[in-house]
Amino acid sequence: MLDKVVQNKVAKAIVTPEGDMDVLSLAEVQRLQDISDGGLHKIFRQCCLAVLNCGSNMDDAEEVLSSFADFDVHVVQQYRGLKLEIDNAPASAFVDGEMIVGIRDNLFSVLRDIVYIHGELLGNCALDLSNSEGITNAVFHILRHANVLRPRIKPDTVVCWGGHSINSYEYQYTKKVGYELGLRHLNICTGCGPGAMKGPMKGANIAHAKQRVSDGRYIGITEPGIIAAESPNPIVNQLVIMPDIEKRLEAFVRLGHGIIVFPGGVGTAEEILYLLGILLHPRNADLPYPLVFTGPASAASYFGLIDEFIAETLGEEARSRYQIIIDDPAAAARAMKQGMEKVTAFRKLHSDAYHFNWVLHVDDHFQQPFEPSHDNMASLNLHLGQEPWKLAANLRRAMSGIVAGNVKANGIQAIKQHGPYHISGDTGLMQRLDALLEAFVEEKRMKINASRYVPCYRVIR
Amino acid sequence: MLDKVVQNKVAKAIVTPEGDMDVLSLAEVQRLQDISDGGLHKIFRQCCLAVLNCGSNMDDAEEVLSSFADFDVHVVQQYRGLKLEIDNAPASAFVDGEMIVGIRDNLFSVLRDIVYIHGELLGNCALDLSNSEGITNAVFHILRHANVLRPRIKPDTVVCWGGHSINSYEYQYTKKVGYELGLRHLNICTGCGPGAMKGPMKGANIAHAKQRVSDGRYIGITEPGIIAAESPNPIVNQLVIMPDIEKRLEAFVRLGHGIIVFPGGVGTAEEILYLLGILLHPRNADLPYPLVFTGPASAASYFGLIDEFIAETLGEEARSRYQIIIDDPAAAARAMKQGMEKVTAFRKLHSDAYHFNWVLHVDDHFQQPFEPSHDNMASLNLHLGQEPWKLAANLRRAMSGIVAGNVKANGIQAIKQHGPYHISGDTGLMQRLDALLEAFVEEKRMKINASRYVPCYRVIR
Amino acid sequence: MLDKVVQNKVAKAIVTPEGDMDVLSLAEVQRLQDISDGGLHKIFRQCCLAVLNCGSNMDDAEEVLSSFADFDVHVVQQYRGLKLEIDNAPASAFVDGEMIVGIRDNLFSVLRDIVYIHGELLGNCALDLSNSEGITNAVFHILRHANVLRPRIKPDTVVCWGGHSINSYEYQYTKKVGYELGLRHLNICTGCGPGAMKGPMKGANIAHAKQRVSDGRYIGITEPGIIAAESPNPIVNQLVIMPDIEKRLEAFVRLGHGIIVFPGGVGTAEEILYLLGILLHPRNADLPYPLVFTGPASAASYFGLIDEFIAETLGEEARSRYQIIIDDPAAAARAMKQGMEKVTAFRKLHSDAYHFNWVLHVDDHFQQPFEPSHDNMASLNLHLGQEPWKLAANLRRAMSGIVAGNVKANGIQAIKQHGPYHISGDTGLMQRLDALLEAFVEEKRMKINASRYVPCYRVIR
Amino acid sequence: MLDKVVQNKVAKAIVTPEGDMDVLSLAEVQRLQDISDGGLHKIFRQCCLAVLNCGSNMDDAEEVLSSFADFDVHVVQQYRGLKLEIDNAPASAFVDGEMIVGIRDNLFSVLRDIVYIHGELLGNCALDLSNSEGITNAVFHILRHANVLRPRIKPDTVVCWGGHSINSYEYQYTKKVGYELGLRHLNICTGCGPGAMKGPMKGANIAHAKQRVSDGRYIGITEPGIIAAESPNPIVNQLVIMPDIEKRLEAFVRLGHGIIVFPGGVGTAEEILYLLGILLHPRNADLPYPLVFTGPASAASYFGLIDEFIAETLGEEARSRYQIIIDDPAAAARAMKQGMEKVTAFRKLHSDAYHFNWVLHVDDHFQQPFEPSHDNMASLNLHLGQEPWKLAANLRRAMSGIVAGNVKANGIQAIKQHGPYHISGDTGLMQRLDALLEAFVEEKRMKINASRYVPCYRVIR
Repeated sequence: MLDKVVQNKVAKAIVTPEGDMDVLSLAEVQRLQDISDGGLHKIFRQCCLAVLNCGSNMDDAEEVLSSFADFDVHVVQQYRGLKLEIDNAPASAFVDGEMIVGIRDNLFSVLRDIVYIHGELLGNCALDLSNSEGITNAVFHILRHANVLRPRIKPDTVVCWGGHSINSYEYQYTKKVGYELGLRHLNICTGCGPGAMKGPMKGANIAHAKQRVSDGRYIGITEPGIIAAESPNPIVNQLVIMPDIEKRLEAFVRLGHGIIVFPGGVGTAEEILYLLGILLHPRNADLPYPLVFTGPASAASYFGLIDEFIAETLGEEARSRYQIIIDDPAAAARAMKQGMEKVTAFRKLHSDAYHFNWVLHVDDHFQQPFEPSHDNMASLNLHLGQEPWKLAANLRRAMSGIVAGNVKANGIQAIKQHGPYHISGDTGLMQRLDALLEAFVEEKRMKINASRYVPCYRVIR
Repeated sequence: MLDKVVQNKVAKAIVTPEGDMDVLSLAEVQRLQDISDGGLHKIFRQCCLAVLNCGSNMDDAEEVLSSFADFDVHVVQQYRGLKLEIDNAPASAFVDGEMIVGIRDNLFSVLRDIVYIHGELLGNCALDLSNSEGITNAVFHILRHANVLRPRIKPDTVVCWGGHSINSYEYQYTKKVGYELGLRHLNICTGCGPGAMKGPMKGANIAHAKQRVSDGRYIGITEPGIIAAESPNPIVNQLVIMPDIEKRLEAFVRLGHGIIVFPGGVGTAEEILYLLGILLHPRNADLPYPLVFTGPASAASYFGLIDEFIAETLGEEARSRYQIIIDDPAAAARAMKQGMEKVTAFRKLHSDAYHFNWVLHVDDHFQQPFEPSHDNMASLNLHLGQEPWKLAANLRRAMSGIVAGNVKANGIQAIKQHGPYHISGDTGLMQRLDALLEAFVEEKRMKINASRYVPCYRVIR
Repeated sequence: MLDKVVQNKVAKAIVTPEGDMDVLSLAEVQRLQDISDGGLHKIFRQCCLAVLNCGSNMDDAEEVLSSFADFDVHVVQQYRGLKLEIDNAPASAFVDGEMIVGIRDNLFSVLRDIVYIHGELLGNCALDLSNSEGITNAVFHILRHANVLRPRIKPDTVVCWGGHSINSYEYQYTKKVGYELGLRHLNICTGCGPGAMKGPMKGANIAHAKQRVSDGRYIGITEPGIIAAESPNPIVNQLVIMPDIEKRLEAFVRLGHGIIVFPGGVGTAEEILYLLGILLHPRNADLPYPLVFTGPASAASYFGLIDEFIAETLGEEARSRYQIIIDDPAAAARAMKQGMEKVTAFRKLHSDAYHFNWVLHVDDHFQQPFEPSHDNMASLNLHLGQEPWKLAANLRRAMSGIVAGNVKANGIQAIKQHGPYHISGDTGLMQRLDALLEAFVEEKRMKINASRYVPCYRVIR
Repeated sequence: MLDKVVQNKVAKAIVTPEGDMDVLSLAEVQRLQDISDGGLHKIFRQCCLAVLNCGSNMDDAEEVLSSFADFDVHVVQQYRGLKLEIDNAPASAFVDGEMIVGIRDNLFSVLRDIVYIHGELLGNCALDLSNSEGITNAVFHILRHANVLRPRIKPDTVVCWGGHSINSYEYQYTKKVGYELGLRHLNICTGCGPGAMKGPMKGANIAHAKQRVSDGRYIGITEPGIIAAESPNPIVNQLVIMPDIEKRLEAFVRLGHGIIVFPGGVGTAEEILYLLGILLHPRNADLPYPLVFTGPASAASYFGLIDEFIAETLGEEARSRYQIIIDDPAAAARAMKQGMEKVTAFRKLHSDAYHFNWVLHVDDHFQQPFEPSHDNMASLNLHLGQEPWKLAANLRRAMSGIVAGNVKANGIQAIKQHGPYHISGDTGLMQRLDALLEAFVEEKRMKINASRYVPCYRVIR
């Protein structure tokens, strides 16, 4: 066993970046090395491990961390810039002893974002992260610093959401949709893990080759809490680490010009509720936002369930915000392309930047980090007598908690200690929610490789 | 039916190139338009149609030509350069009415090579195409003019041979091998059609994306006789049209630095015999040339047959020239990578160019175009009492004739008129040959979509 | 008169940038428009005017500002990014109605730096600008953000100092030195104004063309106080606005790998004293720093004076830190090139970054902004009984004050109100200082176009 | 003396190119090494020497060749491509032992063109160089092969003609005009020697830096007979060697979109007569061709002389074809820019390529190489009773002969042997011609450094 582990690790590796992502001050280097609580070494190490572990099938952050307990990374200043000294890295990140370049680049993206967020952004007195405007500004600053905001380019970025744990048939479908998007010169942005986050990038990459698009963008947006469970795949050529899930979601909706949702599990449901909640806010009533749910024929029932759940909880207006396209990748891509034109016209009309959706109103309810403690989960307001957008916001939090309980390190530990979360609310709503979650479990959409899924929640009807 | 055909065509399209492939003289434009026998319009039209037809599954040149009898292409001089006006092109070359850029580029590669070969090369008194040196020089000139010879780059080009008509399982395997080659920063050169000519490029393209190789080369080398049957796939970003099959084969072996052979049919057998014949020539005895036969587990028997046939006809020395690697894409790629290092060392030692294998001796026997008439096929010297390299050369011709009878327009017509080719020689050799061909038929390796293959040859034992 | 002024202005111009220098948040745009005291409009407008005024010969900030009192600039957010609307700009910035691209780029550099310094840097609680380390970090952050720190490139940046007001013969000489530097693939960094700040860039540009250096760097480092008097010339392709003169000087010595000093006036003397003061600090005793004073034959006496002054005030150790090379541009360039090799070796040995001289010790005395009020000038400690490096620091301040009194808006007004600065100290030192300044006046090195220079200082012997 | 010569040479140098200009066949390498009469070594060596001698002031081909009698160059095939081994090259081509990159590139341009012209072009049976169309095609093929024909770019190339031997004041003026052209994003094409061929490139280079034009083109067109006297300056980044003076002139007028003529001597007069002769041909009557004669105030009399000579010999129609602009570089550049717009409109209207002026009629009279033997010079038809365009053609030949007698190796030797050329014709015409030539002599426009010019011609009145 030990031997096998040893064989799966590279004892010592040294990498240096291209470009200028390694221009750090001495103070920044020291902070990355600092293993004290105020230091950045712990979070940096965890994110690096996740990036290096992209070849594996693990989606359990705890398991990843314990398998690679002897993994470590050190930043070393040298005359030519920086280098990273890495111990006991997953062997799958290497080819014949050389680290895959895309993985190396993603390591330096991690470095760039962690240094920036903790060194400049969070210390910036001009940004007030307690209010909505401050949070949006923070999202903007991080994306700008990561060089993903490109002005003067017509809307062309499709966010793809969907499960990291989908079957091979659904996975092939996501590739086909990506291919059709790429043929139409569109770029892809996902949560950057496996499954529906990887397929569209692979498909688009082939299409971009055929269309001679040499600067195709495969943007991955993640955050330290989820990265270990959803290792960025190395096709991602622009990786961004946001500070938390809420800012990650806001980055998706302000950077993307349209969204495609593939089949998924609770994470995907969280994303759908988040976006519908925002779009249902009265201030966004006139704002065009292309939104397509799509999958192979086998996914028709899945989207039927979702559609029904939305109809019954959020109402018809919510349903008018998306189309469901089954088993037709080209149609899904065409719907996006056409939607982009409306987005373009709207941005022109409102002098809103192509590269960042300032006009979209994202309410504080969707921005404030939600800590899925047992208490917070139990006290969620899940009653029907509130505005649809608020109900969506609260349902989103419920889903977010379940994701944490399934795959995030903190969440898993909390469940171990205190048992499953309790979720309660209107009886009818609770029944529908329970049915939906039950369906996810049955269709094995909760976790990768979980032979028998043990729910981390209990719906109190 | 007619309607369906119409739906599958784009009535009128106009394309202009990027780059400077459209800088033609007025005389050159006129010659491309010239529909007389001395003119180039016929060959230009045929090649263009093949490039545009890449989305189809047809591999029967006659069928392609008759399905698109109303297809035409015109070169028009305008102030900004040239444009091509195209009538009734296959719809699969377009996405939402726009021609796929890779296909457009390949059209202009056709234009470039046909103008050069017929306008400059064949009229060049300094090149004597009747002798070996002249032919090699012609191959060099065409490749140089097509800008595929890149000096000062270490050997990195793997030629992949194999069938255009392989099953999905073998096809997936070629993608995996291409992926492993791409991870090792190697480039791909193939005959540029479907099947084993396309899979490695797709795989390498994904790997190149992961390795951030932005200038990956997917070289396709074809010739007017075969192009209709093996439409260049649009991932090919360097398409070269050689004048005939012999110069195409010479281009492969002088441009490539190593060769991988996937399962295929007679075309693949022709390629294997061609290369082994050359390597068996005494003057090439010390020259390293990495050669790997590889396929999934299901292809083990196929390569067993080939191996046996070679052992029995060409002998053990021939067998020492290749390795067979079954079901291990990474091992195949590693073997190539290691072989490249020997090639590099050898080129350095002999001051031979990295970009063109001048030292390789290609005998006149392999260079003179072989016209597969019934007479020529019947009089092939297929006896064991000749030097192995000569026997290989003659066996190669036999295979070449069968390819023509299967898929080339001229060959198909000759078979229609005169019945199958007669092939004769030593009884033992003929038995082995017949058995091999029979096996190809049984494994459905002769033609795409041929529900029942009717042999175009008869082996006279 | 009025007509002539009108002819020299372009009433209305709109410019948009290339690249992504215009990715601003709404808050940043608002702040640039804010004409209140806390707003950035005033400083932004002044710097823009200076950049646009580069074609003129004015070096009097007050005169510039009053000539263009009706000049204004507005930042407008639009869907494609930002644009600048500019009123009454100097006509010399335009060619046939189109703004010169280099000038446009420099405008956006101004925008970039002002937004960054005031929006992120000064509000960054992590940077303590009251101590030496914090100041150095601030310099580093600004340079990094301006994208001038390029890792993994061997030392190649020569800082050129010297007068903005030099005669045509000396100017030609600076071009020749720049040419010889450019032939040796070295890059140029100056204060980015006219005269000795422009000549080396022009010379290097021609040499870079001959050497096919397409990414030659012409770095200009300035600050809001001096920019109006020393308009950045448009060859500058990397313009950086530092917050004040002290950070500007620190940027020079940490970014540059060697320094050439051409003849100049008090500004140049300030720069020499600043650098020698730093190099004389015991902690820098072993640090190599190539330093060459050079000029045409006619400048021999000038450098003789400087050399003598240094010998008598700072001593022989200071003299050992530079070489004087008269009338030999190639020798000056060779000395730099050789010096770079020592710098390279030293950085390797100490693992110090090629792109930022962290090891150089810059004492607090050289970093704290010196406000040249009459009181501060009068109370400078100019006595010989202090360590040479401290004396150099104080003499530097004296020179800095005189520069302000000559050409900076604040300084000129202070002199108008209160008469000349009083400078006092050791009698011998004062005599030498007075003689040196007197020589500057006689050689017309104090101001451009000053038919009769009226000193802004009085040396109290 | 010997020592001095030795100091001015670099005994041994080895250079390898960038790009792919060194992809030669073994046969081509052998031909370049072939020192027999049919071989290319002699012409290759001479052109290489000329390129390397660009730093000198010599314009006497014989003197150059004898000073560097021990110069030699060898092409060596190696695994990474080719290298050139160079013996006893002029030291001015090197900086601290390294060859200037622009000079190295120009060496490989020489190699490229000589190999192409002698290996492919002259051996191409499809090109009939005895007729007008064949010659034009040859010009086109050489320019295309040298990669100077760029389609889809609006007319932007200004040909600058004028003396290689002009005074410093005129030289500064050519820089200023080049600067104004460059500010307007125009590119420069000249005969690539010193003086008026270099100044505009230097000026444009600075302007292109200010306009951030990174792909500015400085095209030099020369031929083996003149290259030794007019060494290409290393700013030239596209050097083309045409086979003879007539094809060189045709290249200028078909590649350029407008022409500026600076003061010069007989070479410049030849160019003026050549162009006016072509433009006076009835078939070109409606074709726009911007033509400006310009110089500083001191050149007013020179252009007055030329203008008068044209008026009296070729008539008023000829005068209507050019404007004379004195002492106003911006006006000259604006006239070109405006002229380009007419050219653009005309090309669009006639579907003529932007990159090659096919519509311009160049009569056989201007294309057939003129051999300036004493007999040919004596028998020139210089009578007024012919069509103006024919008279211009013959006067052009007279000037061409005088250039040969002044600076070309063959011509100088012929004059040494047989004394000055005799030129005869109508008395009035002869008087005007003699006066014009006399003025050239007086203004020292005949040769560089000729303290006392001895005419190589005698006008027989």
